[in-house]
Amino acid sequence: MLKVAICGASGYAGAELLRILSGHPGVKVVSVTSEKSAGKSPAEIFPHLSKYGDFLFEPMEPHSLLGKADLFFMALPHKASQPAVALLHREGRKVVDLSADFRIKDRAVYEKWYNTTHEHGDALKKAVYGLPELHRAKIKKATLIANPGCYPTGAILGIYPALKNGLVSHEGIIVDSKSGTSGAGRQSDVRFSYCEVNEGFKAYSVGVHRHTPEIEQELSLIARKDVTINFTPHLLPVNRGILTTVYLKTVKKLTTESAVALYEKVYRNEPFVRVLGADNLPNINAVKGTNRCDIGLKFDPRTGTLIVITAIDNLVKGAAGQAVQNMNIMMGFPEDTALPALSAFP
Amino acid sequence: MLKVAICGASGYAGAELLRILSGHPGVKVVSVTSEKSAGKSPAEIFPHLSKYGDFLFEPMEPHSLLGKADLFFMALPHKASQPAVALLHREGRKVVDLSADFRIKDRAVYEKWYNTTHEHGDALKKAVYGLPELHRAKIKKATLIANPGCYPTGAILGIYPALKNGLVSHEGIIVDSKSGTSGAGRQSDVRFSYCEVNEGFKAYSVGVHRHTPEIEQELSLIARKDVTINFTPHLLPVNRGILTTVYLKTVKKLTTESAVALYEKVYRNEPFVRVLGADNLPNINAVKGTNRCDIGLKFDPRTGTLIVITAIDNLVKGAAGQAVQNMNIMMGFPEDTALPALSAFP
Amino acid sequence: MLKVAICGASGYAGAELLRILSGHPGVKVVSVTSEKSAGKSPAEIFPHLSKYGDFLFEPMEPHSLLGKADLFFMALPHKASQPAVALLHREGRKVVDLSADFRIKDRAVYEKWYNTTHEHGDALKKAVYGLPELHRAKIKKATLIANPGCYPTGAILGIYPALKNGLVSHEGIIVDSKSGTSGAGRQSDVRFSYCEVNEGFKAYSVGVHRHTPEIEQELSLIARKDVTINFTPHLLPVNRGILTTVYLKTVKKLTTESAVALYEKVYRNEPFVRVLGADNLPNINAVKGTNRCDIGLKFDPRTGTLIVITAIDNLVKGAAGQAVQNMNIMMGFPEDTALPALSAFP
Amino acid sequence: MLKVAICGASGYAGAELLRILSGHPGVKVVSVTSEKSAGKSPAEIFPHLSKYGDFLFEPMEPHSLLGKADLFFMALPHKASQPAVALLHREGRKVVDLSADFRIKDRAVYEKWYNTTHEHGDALKKAVYGLPELHRAKIKKATLIANPGCYPTGAILGIYPALKNGLVSHEGIIVDSKSGTSGAGRQSDVRFSYCEVNEGFKAYSVGVHRHTPEIEQELSLIARKDVTINFTPHLLPVNRGILTTVYLKTVKKLTTESAVALYEKVYRNEPFVRVLGADNLPNINAVKGTNRCDIGLKFDPRTGTLIVITAIDNLVKGAAGQAVQNMNIMMGFPEDTALPALSAFP
Repeated sequence: MLKVAICGASGYAGAELLRILSGHPGVKVVSVTSEKSAGKSPAEIFPHLSKYGDFLFEPMEPHSLLGKADLFFMALPHKASQPAVALLHREGRKVVDLSADFRIKDRAVYEKWYNTTHEHGDALKKAVYGLPELHRAKIKKATLIANPGCYPTGAILGIYPALKNGLVSHEGIIVDSKSGTSGAGRQSDVRFSYCEVNEGFKAYSVGVHRHTPEIEQELSLIARKDVTINFTPHLLPVNRGILTTVYLKTVKKLTTESAVALYEKVYRNEPFVRVLGADNLPNINAVKGTNRCDIGLKFDPRTGTLIVITAIDNLVKGAAGQAVQNMNIMMGFPEDTALPALSAFP
Repeated sequence: MLKVAICGASGYAGAELLRILSGHPGVKVVSVTSEKSAGKSPAEIFPHLSKYGDFLFEPMEPHSLLGKADLFFMALPHKASQPAVALLHREGRKVVDLSADFRIKDRAVYEKWYNTTHEHGDALKKAVYGLPELHRAKIKKATLIANPGCYPTGAILGIYPALKNGLVSHEGIIVDSKSGTSGAGRQSDVRFSYCEVNEGFKAYSVGVHRHTPEIEQELSLIARKDVTINFTPHLLPVNRGILTTVYLKTVKKLTTESAVALYEKVYRNEPFVRVLGADNLPNINAVKGTNRCDIGLKFDPRTGTLIVITAIDNLVKGAAGQAVQNMNIMMGFPEDTALPALSAFP
Repeated sequence: MLKVAICGASGYAGAELLRILSGHPGVKVVSVTSEKSAGKSPAEIFPHLSKYGDFLFEPMEPHSLLGKADLFFMALPHKASQPAVALLHREGRKVVDLSADFRIKDRAVYEKWYNTTHEHGDALKKAVYGLPELHRAKIKKATLIANPGCYPTGAILGIYPALKNGLVSHEGIIVDSKSGTSGAGRQSDVRFSYCEVNEGFKAYSVGVHRHTPEIEQELSLIARKDVTINFTPHLLPVNRGILTTVYLKTVKKLTTESAVALYEKVYRNEPFVRVLGADNLPNINAVKGTNRCDIGLKFDPRTGTLIVITAIDNLVKGAAGQAVQNMNIMMGFPEDTALPALSAFP
Repeated sequence: MLKVAICGASGYAGAELLRILSGHPGVKVVSVTSEKSAGKSPAEIFPHLSKYGDFLFEPMEPHSLLGKADLFFMALPHKASQPAVALLHREGRKVVDLSADFRIKDRAVYEKWYNTTHEHGDALKKAVYGLPELHRAKIKKATLIANPGCYPTGAILGIYPALKNGLVSHEGIIVDSKSGTSGAGRQSDVRFSYCEVNEGFKAYSVGVHRHTPEIEQELSLIARKDVTINFTPHLLPVNRGILTTVYLKTVKKLTTESAVALYEKVYRNEPFVRVLGADNLPNINAVKGTNRCDIGLKFDPRTGTLIVITAIDNLVKGAAGQAVQNMNIMMGFPEDTALPALSAFP
């Protein structure tokens, strides 16, 4: 049994890790840390985690944690993650980091968008961006995974086949995303209180959201050119799910059908990507609770635009599920172990 | 592998059976029937059931079904269920019937509340009311299970320990239930359209709901006296979940703590009942997607009332999950096989 | 023009007062106070209040407020309301107090349930409980109105005709209420964050909610006997609305129709009470945004129970709307001035 | 008093017309028609319309209607509207048509997108596109108003100032809209049932939605060039509201502040348009129930894109409210008569 610790486990992503790992036959959760919930059990904070009643959150002390576990899921705030991850990694532990701290390869870009310094360049160099559909080979050999952000996961998976295969221009890419409220985390902020979100809908962080450089980094690797995108996130009055609508300028002749065929070919062996047929469009309610990314495509001949729409569950494929998928790949478990493929609809 | 067929599988309960059984290692779904969706695949009707794309709904023909499966989940409308269940059962097939047709032992009561006749008294006699917490021994030997209604499941589990142990009177019981909208089924009725339900809340079928005699039958068995209750259902603007608030007149001295202790003792070995502590009350969002029933208790000394509150997922413990639990018991599988205990919150 | 001030105006009830009064031809809002939002405009806190952009919240200083306004709406927390209300009232200002501080006539009862002392017995004696349907004559001559709580408004209006006319017993009354989340106020508490409330439903404060003695006080006046009730509130995943289901033991022969006839007679001249016909039940979505209380009735002959169901908007008839109704009555405006009777459905 | 009839009044737009007109001092509703609800009262269909209980829907017979009213609001399905509108108009009645039949000036375009013929070219020539912010002068003299579609209203108001003043290119315009479910009308379609919409989100009619040519017609008039756009609508799990996110390629130097200044100047005298400051973005919950359009602006210097975001209530400014605004202008009432400017939040 692989011994696993979860640091920063009292948020929604941490709770989702606990839920998913509870069904993993090869893993034993040996420690969960949380500063603000220290001394309480997961079942006390999260009534839905009834199995975890005899288990207590403890404050995070990396040195004492070292001896307890073989692999660490780190769900700390960005910046706070840097030293903890670097220490664990230096001491030979496997790490899957759900923060943003090791996603951006270019330190200057990280420091500008996150308005802080990066003090752990060595670990940063070792980190592998954990999007299995793009980097599975590297993930297999990795010791430190930078688990992708929720928005980037849906955006990159939607753009990758078209951009890689020269169907579309690397310029003028527009990414219009809509996320469920759990994406904001579990917090006591009046802006995310029920009455303010329910029956509401708005954009936020237009043009300045921190997931922008992460998407651009991966698209630039795919295009082998610098890609600058426009990214506009919105807040949806649902618990879970991100729908991303991408607008791509086509540079080759195509039809909706030919685009679907290409995407199907690219993702044919992917256990967690489903390309929908030409007459279908994804809905976040069909991926809720699963590790799947559903992709729909539509070519608009009037404007020469390829519209790609992707749906993921922000807490699963966008966070905890993808983290477990990365662990499975790193540790040699079957990739889909413990990862739900069917959602509980409605 | 047990070969299983699901008849009337294109509703929410049928879809939930498909989802749950997809994770069952001892079961193979060999046939799904639906009149209105015949010729289509489950994945076409329910985009979340991606695994079932290569599978087609067929019209139900009991005679041809006979040879295909060993056990049948029947999710037909009441009355229509009668002859189909009776035929399959007569021919030696195991049946778990999710309709109301075989729940009420007293034919006259059934005929009055359902305003129709019951033509299959023989099968009715053989049917076992499939609430495992009350009738597990009989379910083990049963060949025909009348799977309980959603409201009765939450109500009976909440009242059973107090009534059985003489804590409360069998008179004046009030059951005030609130159900998520999936309880109304998957239908195109303007009354259940999004805009009519969202931001709304109302009672319905006050004093005349068909689950009333089903609750009364089981409570009368427990009390060994005729029990007449008042039952008031309400429609909640959520997808899943039933919260039932029961008001019981106490006839013995008690405290909240002593009531909790009794309930814990009664349900101590039950895999799917969780009795909450004296300071806790259940929430439907903690049982969503699971087969669990959470129970909270509060004694009001000012009025001598014991308030019992139960939460279930109407599609799981209230329908498909309990059906699989009954199958597991009947067929000798571990009782919790394939049944989720942890919900995906939020 | 009547000069009006609103103290504690940065919550939902305060915002609703601003919205309603903006359409009142005889009133001018001259001051709004808020400690935490001092220096900001209502339009900054509440984007929907676009008209109030040139207006700033100020900290509350009762002495300096005295000279500014003729009538004060006080929406302060309980206890904090006591001295401010007493001062303004002593100095001859008219006051409508939305807090609980002047609702309970029996100081000992107030002090027990609110776990604090009451220091302003003189003002308490002058205060009139502002439920127009019961106390209109007194409200006309009042100088200090204790505006009813949201739950009591719906509960008392539902019970009044039956209890007053001896149809039902004053014993064994059960009040099962379900309130929208705005009833919890505008606050940054993780328990009322979107993801915790959405798709959830639960009871809270069972047997100990502070609105209990308020309901009992009014019912005791109606029955001319001490009435003790059981009151169970629940939290609904909607913004607005309270549905209250009341269970009453009948002591006279009746039918649903005869109960409807009695209620229609009692409320025949009430501008804001609508008694529904025997086949109709209220829905909170039909009173949303209005000052109306809809009442549905059903007699259950099997158990001799009269079930009364009422629907109000907790922020309007349950708070700001009733406050304006009380002001209208006190000041001689037509009672329905500025009070919306039609909701914007859906 | 102006005598007004509403044809096709049993949908959400019709109900909203009834609600708004109930507060109009210069208008008397003399007739409401509905085929499917004929013989019932509006209060029977819509419990929120309690004032309209003594009033019956009648089937629409244009000839007999002629003598009853001076002005007709027509809320019929497209195509069905053509002959009825043409007849009433020919006989000298004023008409505000909420269907799409008289919006598209180019018959061939109408016939292609709506897949039907247009038989009433004379009336079409007389029709004025009823967007007051663009065509107020013509509306004043009009006898037939083609009331704009909900999506076009939000999209055109958002693009108009930038395009008119040469800030942005007329090419490559992308309109990404998200609409509340009432936009689909009041219908019994399983796709719009509560459980299918709640907790879901999806795009639909990508590249082929019928509001596309309507937006293009008005943008072409503004740009004095043929404008072709990409329009992608999405279905939001809320009752009301459309948020439209527009992406415009800038061709002049600008900043967010300068764009805001221009929009403020253009809309300075508009009673129902509010331009938000540079740090503010609109939310549909702040315009709910009102006739207002809120506009937010953000210039993204990294990509040279001007992002314009507009929020309207699809049933008010997007339908019934704008219809009344047009009537007010045509008939010489103050333009904002009976039109709510403040929403009831939350």
